[in-house]
Amino acid sequence: MFGTIGNTGCSGVRRNTMNNNSPVDCLERLRLLDRERMHICRSAALLQWDQETYLPSDGVEERAEQLAVLEGLAHEKLISGEVGELLDKLRDCASIAGTAAEAISDLQDGMDGFPAKDFLRVFRRDYDKAVKLPVDFVRECARAEGLSQAAWIEARGHKDFAAFAPHLEKMIGLAQQKAAFWGWEKDSLYDGLLDCYEPAFGEKEISAVFDPLQEKLQQLLQKIAARPKPENVFLNHHFKEQKQEAFFREVLSGIGFDGKRSRMDISAHPFTTTLGFNDVRITTRYDGSDPLSGLFSVIHESGHAFYELGIDGALRYSSLAEGASMGIHESQSRLWENVIGRSRAFWKPWFPRFREYFSEELGNTDFENFYRSVNTILPGPIRVEADELSYSLHIILRFELEKKLIAGQLSVNELPDVWKAKMKDYLGVECADDAEGVLQDVHWSMGAFGYFPSYALGNLYALQFWDSLQRALGDVDELLERREYEKIHSWLRENIHRKGRSAEPSELIKEVTGRPLSAESFFLYIENKYTELYGL
Amino acid sequence: MFGTIGNTGCSGVRRNTMNNNSPVDCLERLRLLDRERMHICRSAALLQWDQETYLPSDGVEERAEQLAVLEGLAHEKLISGEVGELLDKLRDCASIAGTAAEAISDLQDGMDGFPAKDFLRVFRRDYDKAVKLPVDFVRECARAEGLSQAAWIEARGHKDFAAFAPHLEKMIGLAQQKAAFWGWEKDSLYDGLLDCYEPAFGEKEISAVFDPLQEKLQQLLQKIAARPKPENVFLNHHFKEQKQEAFFREVLSGIGFDGKRSRMDISAHPFTTTLGFNDVRITTRYDGSDPLSGLFSVIHESGHAFYELGIDGALRYSSLAEGASMGIHESQSRLWENVIGRSRAFWKPWFPRFREYFSEELGNTDFENFYRSVNTILPGPIRVEADELSYSLHIILRFELEKKLIAGQLSVNELPDVWKAKMKDYLGVECADDAEGVLQDVHWSMGAFGYFPSYALGNLYALQFWDSLQRALGDVDELLERREYEKIHSWLRENIHRKGRSAEPSELIKEVTGRPLSAESFFLYIENKYTELYGL
Repeated sequence: MFGTIGNTGCSGVRRNTMNNNSPVDCLERLRLLDRERMHICRSAALLQWDQETYLPSDGVEERAEQLAVLEGLAHEKLISGEVGELLDKLRDCASIAGTAAEAISDLQDGMDGFPAKDFLRVFRRDYDKAVKLPVDFVRECARAEGLSQAAWIEARGHKDFAAFAPHLEKMIGLAQQKAAFWGWEKDSLYDGLLDCYEPAFGEKEISAVFDPLQEKLQQLLQKIAARPKPENVFLNHHFKEQKQEAFFREVLSGIGFDGKRSRMDISAHPFTTTLGFNDVRITTRYDGSDPLSGLFSVIHESGHAFYELGIDGALRYSSLAEGASMGIHESQSRLWENVIGRSRAFWKPWFPRFREYFSEELGNTDFENFYRSVNTILPGPIRVEADELSYSLHIILRFELEKKLIAGQLSVNELPDVWKAKMKDYLGVECADDAEGVLQDVHWSMGAFGYFPSYALGNLYALQFWDSLQRALGDVDELLERREYEKIHSWLRENIHRKGRSAEPSELIKEVTGRPLSAESFFLYIENKYTELYGL
Repeated sequence: MFGTIGNTGCSGVRRNTMNNNSPVDCLERLRLLDRERMHICRSAALLQWDQETYLPSDGVEERAEQLAVLEGLAHEKLISGEVGELLDKLRDCASIAGTAAEAISDLQDGMDGFPAKDFLRVFRRDYDKAVKLPVDFVRECARAEGLSQAAWIEARGHKDFAAFAPHLEKMIGLAQQKAAFWGWEKDSLYDGLLDCYEPAFGEKEISAVFDPLQEKLQQLLQKIAARPKPENVFLNHHFKEQKQEAFFREVLSGIGFDGKRSRMDISAHPFTTTLGFNDVRITTRYDGSDPLSGLFSVIHESGHAFYELGIDGALRYSSLAEGASMGIHESQSRLWENVIGRSRAFWKPWFPRFREYFSEELGNTDFENFYRSVNTILPGPIRVEADELSYSLHIILRFELEKKLIAGQLSVNELPDVWKAKMKDYLGVECADDAEGVLQDVHWSMGAFGYFPSYALGNLYALQFWDSLQRALGDVDELLERREYEKIHSWLRENIHRKGRSAEPSELIKEVTGRPLSAESFFLYIENKYTELYGL
């Protein structure tokens, strides 16, 4: 296939004699360049996956260099003069009066279901963004990221924030530089970073959603704090890693995780990565005292994986073969983890299996006991183990801190103490040390500032999608009780997954749910669920 | 470090104004380009390692494309105009009368122990070779190789040579084309392929060593066949994979395999790959009925890994950070596997541990029994499980066949039958099917024609080195009995490993052993060992 696409007759473009090339020829050539770039990106993703899973410890430094080289090459491919010329040529075709309609219909016809117009819009946006970053800067980022992540793993292990601080400082500086390269003003650098993850939302728009949500969630939290806590059924037992793994794999396969196109490994921090159209990988970790910590992370990452695996084959190898946005991506993982994974209906058939694996450890725990246990509202220091209600408050805290870090209103040295103070204020939680405080997340070590808000936006998207799914499928609980997940997968695939990045998030939510994004569905869901559970 | 080397003031070269650059500047620039290329090659090696170990089955096709892109990029880096200009410039410096000595001493002084002259010799050779292969051809090879390897795995599983035949045909065609691109005449294409693995030996030179060796080995084999066979102590027992793995890992760590710089995984065919200076990986497989099949492959691959891990830090990131040749590489693996790994002295301390792992399975087997069992001469169909004596005959068979395949004197369709006939003739062995016949090795599926002879040459190098090592270290058996491997590692590192590719194989063997390569040491070793063992 590679060779065929390479010989579409657009080779003239290489020699800057584009006048004789049809728009279809130019688009084919652009798709080939995009395809090569995607292959380099996926290769870099494998280097990263391997760094988190199997790389020998002394190999970290060289791996950072290898990554820097590949990411530099991918960047060079994207910003090459040829790409710029092809994009300009295609824009000119479309804008010359009288030929626009013709050119575009040409493009659509020749593409076998490939959404050429969406591709050009998205590719142009990526190009415009990338062309502003110098190659040396991109390499520096990749290398610093590798070293910073390695330092973070060490520092977290030793509960030693000071060892990580210079790396964090470096990553903040690079993030600020990045936003500045993109043309954002000094006082709106954070908006520039948010724009990478959720284009429709700047700092102001997010505050407008987060501020009232924070208030409502804190009120609900206070009511719940006044009620008796449900018994923790997992106290004082050891859950063997081998048995956990076997159960996780049974659930994975049960909910439709395809072993021919995906796999699961172990890493310090669970993640999902796409290494090819038929190669999407998740990772997990095992907590000997709580099997559900790992299990819910597995279900969470599966939600991400289902999205990637559900993208239409017509988008394969192209820049469109990714999620619409981080928030939309997170809506899929949190839908599976919480809305499905922590529901009564889901556990009705799975609890008996779970008991078979861990009969001794669970003792006399009955279903209702267990269900309450996996839905306990109990604020704690760790985000990835937080209940559905506290979770958004964890995110709001990170949002508050990272916007100040980027704005230079908070120094890295102050960070651990400010973190602890805010944890106490928002969630009433004391952090014992920095490992369960500011060092718990991988994101900042990777320079991914502006990423955190997507998690909370994901919750909002998820519940708004879920309302529509329920209207379309009728009694979803019955499906879950029968472990029939295919209708749910189909609905999500048809309405969300298959479109990949060809859909703009703000359009997608309106198209699928009939209204723009709001926190309404999410808060109603939380309020109803926990009012019932805690008898409020 | 990357940034520093990137700014050595040789940037003028990029603009084709090299006249003002000193040889040292040019060499630094060349080393930087080499370093980037090595990073791409190591990344491609990771893609391959992953394909053999963890890649989901449906991801194979896309992986082949990814590999093709990375290998194409590495090739482009090597043959870039800038590389050619730098090499010419440096050659000119060295050849202008009066400045040669000066320029070279300049180079050596500025390099912190880096062997600049050797680097230029090797790099020039690689460049000259690579520049003759068109980029599209290199990509086609990489892609065909990925598909061919996948087809081979399938075909071997189904004992279905016909399914693999078109891929083999394709790989032969590509190998012939490759040798032709390098400028070899139609009747010496196989010499061109041999040249990649063992420069000093063409088809004629190899025949001159192999022919008499074949005769002597077959004579010895006949004598042994007339003697009673030792009892096989592994018959009718199942050796659990988990226990095998635990024992393998204990041996690995005991003989000095460094977990911070290396790792072991599972694949269909054991191999060693270098993904970085501190990241050398081996693979193995488990045979439930014979734990020693896997163990000796582990020791074999460790020998390769020790070589790679022993290369001097001054060569790091450069083209010199590889083995001197395939034969020299193989000498290290076969030294560990056979000369050390199948000796009485090695097993004296390890046999008691082995018995602890498998006491039930081994029953009353005593040391002598066991030692005879791991040194049984018993010709069989599988090369990687062959005894030390039969092994070279397996290689000679492959040498005979592949030279004919490349010369077009043998067709792919005839191959399975000719294989079977030759197996009977050389070793007296019947192959039950193609899985234990022509489909057993990975090499041809990768297009690695000309590789096999290195294995037998490796045996010759190994025993010639071993003679010198014994003269230098005195009672080596005593070291082995005390599990003191460090002196052996040191001698090998100092005399062979640390030099990497800076040593030419034909020079290296003379330098280390005082004489050119011959089969003398090898045959004496075989004759003595088995005369004693079989009371001939």
